[in-house]
Amino acid sequence: GHVLWLPVCCSSPDPGLRESLMLQESSWETGGRLLLTKAELQLSERLHRLKEQEMASADFPPALHFFRAKPLIQRSPIYSLLRAMPKGAALHIHDFSLVGVEWLVRNVTYRPHCYMCFTQDQSVRFLFSSREPKSIPLCSSWVLLTTLRAKTGNTTDFDNSLVSNLTLFTDDPEEAYTSQDAVWKRFEQAFTTAWGLVTYAPVFKDYYYEGLKQLYMDNCMYLELRALLPETYELDGGTHDRSWGLSAYQEVTRQFVSEHPDFLGARVIFTVHRGLNESMVLKAVEEAMNLQKAFPEIMAGFDLVGREDKGRTLWSFREALSLPGKRGVNLPFFFHAGETDEYGTEVDGNLLDALLFNTSRIGHGFALLRHPLVKELSRKRGIAVEVCPISNQVLKLVSDLRNHPATVLMSEGHPLVISSDDPALFGASGLSHDFYEAFVGIGGLNSHIGTLKELAMNSIRYSSLSPELKVKALDIWKKKWDKFISENSR
Amino acid sequence: GHVLWLPVCCSSPDPGLRESLMLQESSWETGGRLLLTKAELQLSERLHRLKEQEMASADFPPALHFFRAKPLIQRSPIYSLLRAMPKGAALHIHDFSLVGVEWLVRNVTYRPHCYMCFTQDQSVRFLFSSREPKSIPLCSSWVLLTTLRAKTGNTTDFDNSLVSNLTLFTDDPEEAYTSQDAVWKRFEQAFTTAWGLVTYAPVFKDYYYEGLKQLYMDNCMYLELRALLPETYELDGGTHDRSWGLSAYQEVTRQFVSEHPDFLGARVIFTVHRGLNESMVLKAVEEAMNLQKAFPEIMAGFDLVGREDKGRTLWSFREALSLPGKRGVNLPFFFHAGETDEYGTEVDGNLLDALLFNTSRIGHGFALLRHPLVKELSRKRGIAVEVCPISNQVLKLVSDLRNHPATVLMSEGHPLVISSDDPALFGASGLSHDFYEAFVGIGGLNSHIGTLKELAMNSIRYSSLSPELKVKALDIWKKKWDKFISENSR
Ligand SMILES: [Zn+2]
Ligand SMILES: [Zn+2]
Repeated sequence: GHVLWLPVCCSSPDPGLRESLMLQESSWETGGRLLLTKAELQLSERLHRLKEQEMASADFPPALHFFRAKPLIQRSPIYSLLRAMPKGAALHIHDFSLVGVEWLVRNVTYRPHCYMCFTQDQSVRFLFSSREPKSIPLCSSWVLLTTLRAKTGNTTDFDNSLVSNLTLFTDDPEEAYTSQDAVWKRFEQAFTTAWGLVTYAPVFKDYYYEGLKQLYMDNCMYLELRALLPETYELDGGTHDRSWGLSAYQEVTRQFVSEHPDFLGARVIFTVHRGLNESMVLKAVEEAMNLQKAFPEIMAGFDLVGREDKGRTLWSFREALSLPGKRGVNLPFFFHAGETDEYGTEVDGNLLDALLFNTSRIGHGFALLRHPLVKELSRKRGIAVEVCPISNQVLKLVSDLRNHPATVLMSEGHPLVISSDDPALFGASGLSHDFYEAFVGIGGLNSHIGTLKELAMNSIRYSSLSPELKVKALDIWKKKWDKFISENSR
Repeated sequence: GHVLWLPVCCSSPDPGLRESLMLQESSWETGGRLLLTKAELQLSERLHRLKEQEMASADFPPALHFFRAKPLIQRSPIYSLLRAMPKGAALHIHDFSLVGVEWLVRNVTYRPHCYMCFTQDQSVRFLFSSREPKSIPLCSSWVLLTTLRAKTGNTTDFDNSLVSNLTLFTDDPEEAYTSQDAVWKRFEQAFTTAWGLVTYAPVFKDYYYEGLKQLYMDNCMYLELRALLPETYELDGGTHDRSWGLSAYQEVTRQFVSEHPDFLGARVIFTVHRGLNESMVLKAVEEAMNLQKAFPEIMAGFDLVGREDKGRTLWSFREALSLPGKRGVNLPFFFHAGETDEYGTEVDGNLLDALLFNTSRIGHGFALLRHPLVKELSRKRGIAVEVCPISNQVLKLVSDLRNHPATVLMSEGHPLVISSDDPALFGASGLSHDFYEAFVGIGGLNSHIGTLKELAMNSIRYSSLSPELKVKALDIWKKKWDKFISENSR
């Protein structure tokens, strides 16, 4: 228990008592109990000074929408340090928002046989095909991109317009996205646009390889990917099923790891949309169990995705979610829950239900503070919250990131990790932008090198890796960390 | 301790256990343990249905800036009910933002001998005087308002321009106030504009009487007023000191209570600006002790006001604040603390220091969640937080009130009261607008009639009234409450 004794009243407060209460409170924070080396403390001092400078500026990046903050963050020396920092694992990223869209446009859309059509709502669709495909509803007839680009005077402009079709970025986000409905509509549109590119089987593999590479470049060393495992297709119209996708992930991961021995690999959390009906989710859970049996190395578990406020509740899928338990199969769950600001609704019950269904982690948990009992349960059981600051801001749960609920989770030392959810759609790269928001905005002047160290270690601790692999991962990470510290502490 | 047992894993979660966990969590909320009558439950049902309707609307008022939300709130049947509801005491309102500015313009500026001048920064100043006053720096020469109005074709437009000089209201608050600096500048400007009107001795009394009347009309029954007790003046330039102001408050309060026996009265928390230096605050604390000795009935205690982020810290005034204790005098403190989003700064230490100096309540405590140790201390000692939602929104600590930290305090049943800080400057009236935001936005679908009942009772429980007067107050309140329930439960 906490020692909370205070003399009641009178005369001057004892500065020693004050000091000890402040230290006690600091010790509760994420990273507050780590013993730090002299070199770590030196770097921490430097980060503190840099943070004071950024807080003093009129445009404090975490108070701004990420689309406005990004250019400022790019120039921030704190950001450079965070990019160089070994951040451990990325535990909450979705399959088709893993790779910066520049790569999709500059690389994938330049490949042969790439067709495009224009939808009635100002968007586009892509398809690879060995001959001109049949046209699809609400879209123009298909045109080869090589043909289009040949006709276009300015391919730079053309390519930029493709980029903007594939992300949510806009110069005036407050004007463009006036409500959660508006921004989620755009989110789903951009996602659909990418679909035809990323489900083309050869691109599917290359995309994933490129994603691992970008994470590696961002100094992350392991990934747990929320993946829809969609049907993929070939030029001749032939298709592949989920197993193909999963073994593609496995094969590419192995290859990448063999080329980058300090990268630990990746596992997959199979996800389906929460808009599905009960029998479809039941089927998906059955399939998840089969996939897990067939691919125990790479399959980590199961989750439901899509906008929580508009989807079915976890409780409504209780039949399906109880299936593994009933069959005596251990299928780990990694539920998105509490990604809502509608306090007291049915959907707001997802947080408790995620724990009742024995979730391994909580995706977002934005509403967790408003459920003190669930919060206490998740803390006691060591169920980490996957905090994705930029996602919550762009999807309009919170505007000023200093008000993000993770400020409180961090000050209480709640188990948590930082992730980036859909970095490509938001224009963020890897984990570094989200680490910046977490360290500078959410942590404020209170977060320090110990916070960063614990967040990185948490990402391994709360991963789905086996105890043996966790030891190995921490070992690799520690060497990188020590190098990072020694290179930046002077 | 809380019972937090959960079977680990497997098979279906027990619906009975789920239900009991949900009930347990509900019992922690503000008002969650009150036993409610059938009639109360009926009204609660009705409020719940109304709330669902308002949450379903595209423009959910608590998500909008109050200036945009106000017209929607005025039309809300929930608001009508909250206006009619006996809300108990207003424990955090400042002296010169007590009365809707319409009254200042339509009544006070129409009194004889009222002069006005125009400042270089588009504002105005007022002064009552029996002859033309000497001009003041950076302001035009003084003109009688009767003369000005005679010259003006459209006195309605003219009066509206005066109104807008006296409030922060604007059609496009996001555009007008792009930063906390900008909105605080305007705040201080509007406050300064009112100064010459409200410190004219006859107006000083009438203003206060009108303030009590407006609170009474809003179904509040007691006030604790944060008051600067400034020098007041007469037509001939003669002035009155603090004692005069305090006895004026006492006299007017007595008169008002004699005319409205179901109104309990008011007490004064003497405040000075936190921009003052140490020796000035020391003098102010001495004066507070003297005033308390001379006016024990109406003097409740002492506080520091002004923007916390830009003012000196409580700790920097420790000499002054320790004085009463050292002298063995019990001068209660009611400190503003934690009205900041700059986490980890010196100013952010005010919350702990407020408790170390034995504060009776915490004004705002916006940053309290980020200080779990201070939060626990304040809870254990029963130090209530004065939550002022609209103030925090207009002064740009939070935009969407569903993210206000009081959501968490309410879900944890932390001691708190709802107040309105500077209602006149924000265009709010009494407590009802803030109760609307607290009940609909902060409480979400989880708040119910029990929440409202406990909030109202809290305002008496955590007041500075003597135990005997609290009993009396609760008695009067209970009769009003029962009447309110029986009139609105069908
Ligand atoms: Zn997600
Ligand atoms: Zn105040």
